Amino acid sequence: MATALQDLAAPDGICYGCGSAHPHGLHIKSYWHEDGVHVVATHTPDPQFTGWPGLVYGGLIAMLVDCHSNWTAMAYHYRAEGREPGSLPRIDCVTGRLGVEYLKPTPMGVPLSLKAWVEGPVERKSRVLCEVRAGEVLTARGDSVFVRVDTARLAAAAHGR
Amino acid sequence: MATALQDLAAPDGICYGCGSAHPHGLHIKSYWHEDGVHVVATHTPDPQFTGWPGLVYGGLIAMLVDCHSNWTAMAYHYRAEGREPGSLPRIDCVTGRLGVEYLKPTPMGVPLSLKAWVEGPVERKSRVLCEVRAGEVLTARGDSVFVRVDTARLAAAAHGR
Repeated sequence: MATALQDLAAPDGICYGCGSAHPHGLHIKSYWHEDGVHVVATHTPDPQFTGWPGLVYGGLIAMLVDCHSNWTAMAYHYRAEGREPGSLPRIDCVTGRLGVEYLKPTPMGVPLSLKAWVEGPVERKSRVLCEVRAGEVLTARGDSVFVRVDTARLAAAAHGR
Repeated sequence: MATALQDLAAPDGICYGCGSAHPHGLHIKSYWHEDGVHVVATHTPDPQFTGWPGLVYGGLIAMLVDCHSNWTAMAYHYRAEGREPGSLPRIDCVTGRLGVEYLKPTPMGVPLSLKAWVEGPVERKSRVLCEVRAGEVLTARGDSVFVRVDTARLAAAAHGR
């Protein structure tokens, strides 16, 4: 079994969606597909993340698309630099723009699979597309932009330091 | 103190983001502003919803924008029909497209305020803009589409019934 990108590159991560060290977050795990193009993840929604009865909460889908797409951007950045996730210096990206199109209602109780890739160049701002399937059914599609940053500097700026 | 739109129109709601009856969800509460244009909400993120250290998880902001914007769409629909939220038949909308632009990092530990409105006509598909502020600082902006639906029919279709 391969090791997830999150566990390789940020084992101390505390993000609610994808932090390996978050005590009770979603623990999204993303992996390179063997095709060398796509980054994939699977996730079975906890019943608490219901939206309408019997349907997955769109906000959960947004969280999955957000974190998984961001890890896709970071995976592409590592590869563009010819080095493995987990090598230093660490590569960090944040969400610049999150876009999720809800094509069909997503049923609760079915494992979801995510497949994402960078569309176009891998740059400071990279565009990531992400497909979400419930079983075989494409139910949502992400189209987002992730920005490579220095996160310590970002946090300092946000708190006026 | 006014009653929130969620408690007026869907006191039995189980949505993780905005369901009044969810045992431990976000319990987002949305209110008409007295200006008759904006729908507003405030929310102080629980520390579990951290993204990067010291910063609010973008996925939480996406959930806030999603539910609050949807309630903005529903509030406008009730008003367009000249009746109060809570009157029957109930009006339900779902997210067609969620768009969130992250303008600045959002610091943890500051109450967030949301201000949303329908931009353009109130139709089966309505566009809702939503501003998110941490204190006085605009940190994120939503631009999304919400679709008026029969949610029981949607759930049946999602489960192949």
